[in-house]
Amino acid sequence: MAVIDELVEASRQHRLNFTGGQLPMPPRRRVAIVTCMDARILPSRILELDIGDAHVIRNAGGRAADAVRSLVISQELLGTREVAVIHHTDCGMLTFTNESLRAKVKSDLGVEGSSIDFLPFTNVEQSVRDDVGLLRASRLIPIDIPIRGFVYDVHSGALTEVV
Amino acid sequence: MAVIDELVEASRQHRLNFTGGQLPMPPRRRVAIVTCMDARILPSRILELDIGDAHVIRNAGGRAADAVRSLVISQELLGTREVAVIHHTDCGMLTFTNESLRAKVKSDLGVEGSSIDFLPFTNVEQSVRDDVGLLRASRLIPIDIPIRGFVYDVHSGALTEVV
Repeated sequence: MAVIDELVEASRQHRLNFTGGQLPMPPRRRVAIVTCMDARILPSRILELDIGDAHVIRNAGGRAADAVRSLVISQELLGTREVAVIHHTDCGMLTFTNESLRAKVKSDLGVEGSSIDFLPFTNVEQSVRDDVGLLRASRLIPIDIPIRGFVYDVHSGALTEVV
Repeated sequence: MAVIDELVEASRQHRLNFTGGQLPMPPRRRVAIVTCMDARILPSRILELDIGDAHVIRNAGGRAADAVRSLVISQELLGTREVAVIHHTDCGMLTFTNESLRAKVKSDLGVEGSSIDFLPFTNVEQSVRDDVGLLRASRLIPIDIPIRGFVYDVHSGALTEVV
């Protein structure tokens, strides 16, 4: 059985117990979270987010460069007023370089991946500082939106503010 | 009190009850979910995903174009073997056009946003078909990776396969 079939089956149970169907589109708590796709990160559990509370933007590394389009929509159209960038320890982005992944893509898939910046990093606190800096400097993010950066420790469950 | 301060406070409670600190980096169920940042979507609740199960990639609309970088990392380095693209009813992406949002960005922020494609859509089933098609056609996604597309109904809690 494909894993996705198991997820579809799980969603049937979810539907039976579903509440929250009348919630509006804008996030109730007016906050956007930018974090990694990592399987050990469950934002709703870590931050006690309920249905309808917050926008959650996730990609490999929780990189801000991939999140600007979404943040403009979140702020301009749906009223969010704070941003938290959360990277984490033991992140996959610490395990490769653009050169090594491009070589692997070429070897495995026969594709020259040299046009893609996979946005790896070598230090998770520095990547948080870089990404918060990118957003604070962006003219597409209003100057009065607080942007704060954190590291989540996947081994201890602790969230630590970096910037 | 800033909302982010409330989230930090919530994370302290999470840490006290935390289990799962020994989980490895690769997702246990070897699946990647691509879905929208919408506040009404809690993937872990809808799909009964536990900590460590799945990569979750989220952006405005759940658009595949924003997810390719992350999916390459997910598949090439962390072993995921299935992809589910999940868009949803009552999505913010149905409420604007590139032209209208660029005009609002210019009016609100004084920035010419004309270089950004905000990736809006006018039909949620078609956007799922488009994005599954984009990933199936991508040479960066192995041909043997199943890619399936769904619409989640935020009013009923139902998940329906489209493609």
